[in-house]
Amino acid sequence: MDLQIPALRAAYRKGLHPREVVAEVYRRIKARGDDGVWITLRPEEEVLAGLPDDPGLPLYGVPFAVKDNIDVAGLPTTVACPDFAYAPGRSAPLVDRLIGAGAILIGKNNLDQFATGLSGSRSPYGSVESPLVKGLISGGSSSGSAVAVSAGLVSFSIGTDTAGSGRVPAVMTGTVGLKPSKGLVSTLGVVPACASLDCPSVFALNVPDARVVLEIIQGYEPDDPWSRELPRRDEPIRRIGVIRGDDDWTGILARLAGLGYELVDVDIEPFLAAGRLLYEGPWVAERWSVLGPFVESHPESLHPVTAKVLGTGAGVTGADAFRGLHRLRELMSETRRTWAQVDALAVPTVPRTFTLAEMAEDPIGRNSVLGTYTTFANLLDLAGIAVPAGFTSAGGPHGVTLLAPAGADGPLADAAERFHTGMAGATPYRIRRRGTPLAVVG
Amino acid sequence: MDLQIPALRAAYRKGLHPREVVAEVYRRIKARGDDGVWITLRPEEEVLAGLPDDPGLPLYGVPFAVKDNIDVAGLPTTVACPDFAYAPGRSAPLVDRLIGAGAILIGKNNLDQFATGLSGSRSPYGSVESPLVKGLISGGSSSGSAVAVSAGLVSFSIGTDTAGSGRVPAVMTGTVGLKPSKGLVSTLGVVPACASLDCPSVFALNVPDARVVLEIIQGYEPDDPWSRELPRRDEPIRRIGVIRGDDDWTGILARLAGLGYELVDVDIEPFLAAGRLLYEGPWVAERWSVLGPFVESHPESLHPVTAKVLGTGAGVTGADAFRGLHRLRELMSETRRTWAQVDALAVPTVPRTFTLAEMAEDPIGRNSVLGTYTTFANLLDLAGIAVPAGFTSAGGPHGVTLLAPAGADGPLADAAERFHTGMAGATPYRIRRRGTPLAVVG
Repeated sequence: MDLQIPALRAAYRKGLHPREVVAEVYRRIKARGDDGVWITLRPEEEVLAGLPDDPGLPLYGVPFAVKDNIDVAGLPTTVACPDFAYAPGRSAPLVDRLIGAGAILIGKNNLDQFATGLSGSRSPYGSVESPLVKGLISGGSSSGSAVAVSAGLVSFSIGTDTAGSGRVPAVMTGTVGLKPSKGLVSTLGVVPACASLDCPSVFALNVPDARVVLEIIQGYEPDDPWSRELPRRDEPIRRIGVIRGDDDWTGILARLAGLGYELVDVDIEPFLAAGRLLYEGPWVAERWSVLGPFVESHPESLHPVTAKVLGTGAGVTGADAFRGLHRLRELMSETRRTWAQVDALAVPTVPRTFTLAEMAEDPIGRNSVLGTYTTFANLLDLAGIAVPAGFTSAGGPHGVTLLAPAGADGPLADAAERFHTGMAGATPYRIRRRGTPLAVVG
Repeated sequence: MDLQIPALRAAYRKGLHPREVVAEVYRRIKARGDDGVWITLRPEEEVLAGLPDDPGLPLYGVPFAVKDNIDVAGLPTTVACPDFAYAPGRSAPLVDRLIGAGAILIGKNNLDQFATGLSGSRSPYGSVESPLVKGLISGGSSSGSAVAVSAGLVSFSIGTDTAGSGRVPAVMTGTVGLKPSKGLVSTLGVVPACASLDCPSVFALNVPDARVVLEIIQGYEPDDPWSRELPRRDEPIRRIGVIRGDDDWTGILARLAGLGYELVDVDIEPFLAAGRLLYEGPWVAERWSVLGPFVESHPESLHPVTAKVLGTGAGVTGADAFRGLHRLRELMSETRRTWAQVDALAVPTVPRTFTLAEMAEDPIGRNSVLGTYTTFANLLDLAGIAVPAGFTSAGGPHGVTLLAPAGADGPLADAAERFHTGMAGATPYRIRRRGTPLAVVG
């Protein structure tokens, strides 16, 4: 059974019933066993008791999951920290919107604790492995959400993305990771990591599915101070800023050029410098501003790596924070020059991949490596979308992320869809069944 | 000799020479003696040696002064702290623009040290008195700049306004204080107070003069990270949000209503709460982020009140700073509801006035009182203009400040000009000569 949205729609038109989809979903989940993907799985009977009944709804009968830093009434929100868990009185508006659109919530996914990390291996609910390659990290922090889609357990999932948590797991699991412009999708009902940077994000097997979901969840929420009425940028992307890289990357650039995009070499350094402010600079204090009181009163409740990372936030001074804000403003100003030359940037989603064993050796240093090309996006107010790009010659999954200034979500998704359409093979869970790595089709 | 711009222009057309204006300016300065208005006065001969020679220039032969936190090549920048003083290699672009437009720089004005304060009595160069009422503070921090205009020493002056430094001195001296939208006038070459909030501002005797000056100094500066390409808002102001007050204030509201504006009662509390974040909250750490290293290495060099205020910035943590940013975002969101109902706000520029003696009794507490209706403007990204409104029944100067979201500088100045035009009497230096307080003409 193909859970991609157009396939499901077609099947429903031909007489499929949502209860059959739910049964298949739970069969697949059961078949995978203890994979660390779920923190809270809804009982199958409960799901079956609340199925949508209007086939005209845009997401009628589409199964989905949410990361466990997003409130769902009736289910605990743990943020992968059992001692922090609470029972939310109401669901995040984005969850209400999806259910109102006919989608079927299956459960809540594992994540790097407090959405802090890019590896998928900082959770007391277990480290999460990519379905693509044995021993490969799933990426994080939206680890379970990405794998739930990659393994064909749900049609789409909602993650969050502050530093790359919606993009790093996408490349690791061969899924599309759509990180909308900041403020386009409300973070009401989402546990803050860095409130000024947090974005709900979408994982799907293809770009059109992710866009259908975005259409449902986007929109101004007056009660959310971080929600924005963003001017939409509709001009199509023609010029793409690029950096040069190895042969694998050169193949990806060739594919972009072959699609008719004008590639322009850009200086990536101001972008990377902005990114370094997040984990290596004062923005850790933003996490600490929310979590500090809990961490200080529950020193034993945290994952040791998370405790170490968050703890650095306590040592940041107010002057450091403002110096960081000033530095970011300077870097934002420098990158404006790039945006005068190009409509989008194309970067490798990650510079390299790691196995779970490699990650355990240096969980903080390698986390920074993973975030090289993702961390700056929200600081510099960019929209982004990560799409699979086959496998590298070393055998790991490869991916490209397209980025553009906030508001350009539409044109960015257009370009991402053109890049992704016609890539060899189809969906990650089929890849796995075939067992043969994909090559980039140039 | 009337130094207002149209009068000067007319006189130049009839044969007046700039050297006669300069001579009159220096006569007036000399006549006032040691008034604390100047930190650096250019020698008259030097000014005479560099007079403009193109009568077609928009500010041909118009004398002006700048606050001594603004760089002018060849003159020291002291920021009212002699030990901090330096010799800038180049002038602030706004100074170059004014001189390029034919204006004549007379000198640099006293200020509250490091532009920190609203009283005009925190400077080793002397406390500054208002020309309007014996013993009254000039207001600050742009104390000398406001008095130089009020006393008829120059046609206009450039101050700065972070927390009200361009508006409090305006009401105290009977001048117009135009605080442009943040980022509309570049702060390049201006010593930062709170870099994320600082705005150059204009003092003049009437609104049209201030606008002529703004036209010259405004504009995007690519080298300034705080400069913005602001979308202009051109819709005229029709609905003005107001608070209720005493009889004097009721008279001002009656005048606004008489001009045809629809007055709408608004909840001012979210605005005031935003303002409190500046001196009583984490933004002091923004001042400390720039000045801390100097203050720590020169503990004896500061005005004692300034040292006390700035020192609180050292105790702010990074988490405090981010909590403050989050709180500001919430308040910004709350005030959006007000902006859906009104085009501008009208507030008293200050809730009350103080004498120099009163200010000395409680220099920090009374400073906060002075900032009640000014401090929030830059935090909430508003443009503002303070105009004189005669005298209160208690005999102090009264003033109204109009505020509107960034970009509405034009419509705001239109409304301020309508309010100010036809007020009894004319210019502050004439008022003083007459010796009779003005009443509001309703």
